[in-house]
Parts: sequence; structure tokens; C-alpha cells
Amino acid sequence: MRALSRAADGGKQVTSSHEMGEHLGISPAQIRKDLSHFGEFGKQGTGYNIEHLSEQLRRILGVEQEWAVAVIGAGAIGKAIVRYGGFSGRGFRVAAVFDNDPGKIGRSINQLEVLSTERLGSTVRQREIRVAMLAVPAEAAQRVVEKLVEAGVEAILNYAPVSLIVPSPVYVRHIDPVIALQHMTYYLAQKPA
Amino acid sequence: MRALSRAADGGKQVTSSHEMGEHLGISPAQIRKDLSHFGEFGKQGTGYNIEHLSEQLRRILGVEQEWAVAVIGAGAIGKAIVRYGGFSGRGFRVAAVFDNDPGKIGRSINQLEVLSTERLGSTVRQREIRVAMLAVPAEAAQRVVEKLVEAGVEAILNYAPVSLIVPSPVYVRHIDPVIALQHMTYYLAQKPA
Repeated sequence: MRALSRAADGGKQVTSSHEMGEHLGISPAQIRKDLSHFGEFGKQGTGYNIEHLSEQLRRILGVEQEWAVAVIGAGAIGKAIVRYGGFSGRGFRVAAVFDNDPGKIGRSINQLEVLSTERLGSTVRQREIRVAMLAVPAEAAQRVVEKLVEAGVEAILNYAPVSLIVPSPVYVRHIDPVIALQHMTYYLAQKPA
Repeated sequence: MRALSRAADGGKQVTSSHEMGEHLGISPAQIRKDLSHFGEFGKQGTGYNIEHLSEQLRRILGVEQEWAVAVIGAGAIGKAIVRYGGFSGRGFRVAAVFDNDPGKIGRSINQLEVLSTERLGSTVRQREIRVAMLAVPAEAAQRVVEKLVEAGVEAILNYAPVSLIVPSPVYVRHIDPVIALQHMTYYLAQKPA
């Protein structure tokens, strides 16, 4: 999707696995192989129609619709998430922000009022929220997750540096910059400074 | 490391692949297999000595030392990174913050002065920074990366929603919440709401 957006921004209508691969740092063969799992999208020698492939990928990723997302925690990370410009046009919209700090409740971030976590269940149901991003302190994370699952949230992106226990139909992914950094220092440590 | 920290916090000295797996949502067999790539750390039936295994993992991950990290961009995401409490004790320390906005330069975030990006090269060398976190707008990212590479930075964690081109000895990883969300909505889209 990134590579297609970039090619489309450049005014192109057609792209190739070679061009996408160069942009993404992935081999053209890998791109062709990955896409082939889902169908046939291009023709040998003529490349991919950008609009058609984008549409198909949006459908596959489930982002032809826009998902309403709840952000839990209005601290530094929560605020950065709510203000993040990268959601729009990519399938997601922040539909509610929650915190339990009376000093934060009632304030606005990007024209969205911070709600008390006491209103989490009712708001999630009203606004048809199935996805949440968790930006609370590690020690609060598991408790909040239980509330989210009870409210019917089915996918949680967790920024708290702690693993979570959820019932099996609920999806969890973690965003932990330290783990991403360690992936790189593992290699750096093996070569001289 | 997360599972070991949690077990240690709970006052334990020994843990098992079963216990770690439960905490992380990974099978015990997978944990044993992954660890076996690096050596023998536990004994059948007696489990893993937490302190010993932590030490070995820190060495393997290259975080027995502390890495000085530069943060580029003092907007919402950059600020959240600098204030993030999860680095300490896990191998990283934010050693410098940069921005090119005169309104931000000279201000402090977590007692760290925001420096002009003009001072990037000299500061990176002085403070022996090999790792950077990039939190600038997408359209500025590639330009900043070139400055970082020129200054000698070897690993870049990119928060800008754009792919980067770097020379091959430099490592890049991306943190893009939308991609993490799409990993989950791919599954959600396949089941009824």
C-alpha cells in the first residue's frame, strides 16, 4: 500500500514488482510471491494497475471500510497517537479517547474530548468500536484490557511495555520501540564501533 | 527479557519455558528452540536461572552496554519518545533531541535541550551516538536520514510513515501503527461484526 501510494502520488497508473521492491527494500520475487497468495493482480511484462491493486489490497486488509478506534490513555503517547496524521485514508479513525485522570477528562485533543474510562463500555458500543490502542502505564494495562474485551473490543494495539493476556478471539499486537531497537543492536554489537 | 523481568519482579530466581511462554503467548517448545540457537541456558527439569539467562540475553542483544540514542523531531511523537519511561534498564538512553523549528530549539524535554538539526553531525560524533529514532514528517524523512548516515549513525528506528533508502551497512526498522492495525483488521474483516 505504501509503495502503491507513492507511485500514485508520482502520477503513475502502473507499477512493477521491481519498482515496489526497490521502494520497500524487498526483492521483486518476494513481492510477486506474496501477492500470488491472494490472486492474480498483474500481467507478466505489463506490471500492476495501481488503482486496481490498491482496491484489492484494501479489501484484503479489511480497510476498504474505516475502523473506529479507541485510544486509552491521554498521556504523551496517547496524545501523539490522537494527533498522528497517518491514519486518514489508511482505514482508521480515532473515535474516542479515554483517561482516568480527572485533570485530563473533559479536555480536548484534536477536537476530541477525553472521556472518563468509566464511560468506556457504553462509548465503545455506541460508536461501534472494535479496535483499541492502549497507551496506559504498564501496571494498568491488564486491567484496562479486561474492560476493553468486556466491552466487545476485538483487536488491541498495545504500547505499554508489558505482555497482555486476552481470550483467544481477541487479537493483540505490541508496539515497543525498545524491542525494535534491540533487533538492530543485536547486529551492531557484533561489529566494531 | 520481558518474561524474565516479570518473573524476577515476582521474586523468583528460576523460571521455565512453560511460564515464559504463558506470559508471552508463545509455545514453550518455541522458546526452547529459539534459545537453543544461542547455546544451552537451562537444564531439563530444573528450568532457567533468571539472572544468568538475563545476563546472557543482554549480551546477545547487545544491551549489556547502554546505547546513546538521538531523537530527531520534537513534535508530538518525538516528545513522547523522549519522555518514554521504558528505555532505562533496557539498554538505551536518549542522549540528544533535534528539531529545525526555531520555536522548539532551545526548549527542554525531560531536561534535555532541543538542538538545531544543524548541530546533528557534531553532536552525534561528540556523544558517540550510533542509533537514532526518526520522528519527522514523511516528506522530511529521507533528507534527515542522509544527514544521520553521514554523521555515522548505523541504526535508525523510523516513525515517519514512509520507506527510507539507506546504504547497506545501516539498519532501518519501522514503527507504523497503521501497519500493526492492518495486521489485525485483516483477520477481523473475515468475520462478522
